[in-house]
Amino acid sequence: MNETMKTLLNRRSTRAYKPEQIKEAELSNILEGGKFAPSAINEQPWHFTVVQNKQLLNKINEACKAELIKSGHQVLADQAKKEDFSVFYNSPTLIIVSGNEKTITPQIDCALALGNMFLAAESIGIGSCWIHAIAGVLNSEDGAELRKELNIPQGHMVYCSGSFGYKAMEPEAPERKENTVSIIR
Amino acid sequence: MNETMKTLLNRRSTRAYKPEQIKEAELSNILEGGKFAPSAINEQPWHFTVVQNKQLLNKINEACKAELIKSGHQVLADQAKKEDFSVFYNSPTLIIVSGNEKTITPQIDCALALGNMFLAAESIGIGSCWIHAIAGVLNSEDGAELRKELNIPQGHMVYCSGSFGYKAMEPEAPERKENTVSIIR
Repeated sequence: MNETMKTLLNRRSTRAYKPEQIKEAELSNILEGGKFAPSAINEQPWHFTVVQNKQLLNKINEACKAELIKSGHQVLADQAKKEDFSVFYNSPTLIIVSGNEKTITPQIDCALALGNMFLAAESIGIGSCWIHAIAGVLNSEDGAELRKELNIPQGHMVYCSGSFGYKAMEPEAPERKENTVSIIR
Repeated sequence: MNETMKTLLNRRSTRAYKPEQIKEAELSNILEGGKFAPSAINEQPWHFTVVQNKQLLNKINEACKAELIKSGHQVLADQAKKEDFSVFYNSPTLIIVSGNEKTITPQIDCALALGNMFLAAESIGIGSCWIHAIAGVLNSEDGAELRKELNIPQGHMVYCSGSFGYKAMEPEAPERKENTVSIIR
């Protein structure tokens, strides 16, 4: 099996991180992977907002917790009420991917860019996880101020975000579902 | 630069293919990459429909051409009217990715699976391209019969598709846009 296949098969969602920050060169490597994702008619509609500032990370977490508590979803609300709950698993780096809303397929392009960043990270031993809650919060009215503070580009919607950091766990791949392929020859 | 990074940076959209079919083992490799994509709460909501049958590939192409001509978009319509026009660049293999509509983020999960398949293909020297038009046709009323013939699972929407085959061109990466990153430390 070649190295790329190993990366594709070994990359799992990391939900526990060491507190040390990743190195500059490692971050560059991850971002470079993201920039080379394919995009519809090569629009590259994305912007990557990297947050490593602890105060700001904390603010993002608090905003997400508030939304989860407001959501009325009991399980999520109970989780969010816990003092030490972190929506991005206390990762030292968060990458928020926003895209120009006026392009053809910004949601898909941004997802592929984040997917590439996950693989670039895995290839150098760095863990990552897709963080679902943040996009919703930043696109909401409640998140307007935070969005401003993050300097998300005008005309952009936040499509996805991911946590990055050294792994404090080595997750195994859950079983793959069966019968997900049919071949017509 | 490690092998995975090379794959991420070198993988480009291939828009011309050799007519020979890819090998069984190569197809398995590609599908395996797709199956290991991340998905929201591990739902793996995807189904991969591989089409290598020439008659069926032709039918899909004709259906797409008809839709493009109907679209009223002059440039696309003119292109579709050409006898030798192929919406998937005459690739010998087409992979259609459908997803269970009742899952959390089927569109994103399916996009990531197709992105993984592109990278798995590139890692063994096989070209690929995202084919935009097919999903729309297969989800439309006009595409209902074809969808049935393809045996797309019940309750699934077609989210994306990609062409795969040996490259008859070696595309270079277009320039990456500048100022797509901001870092808050």
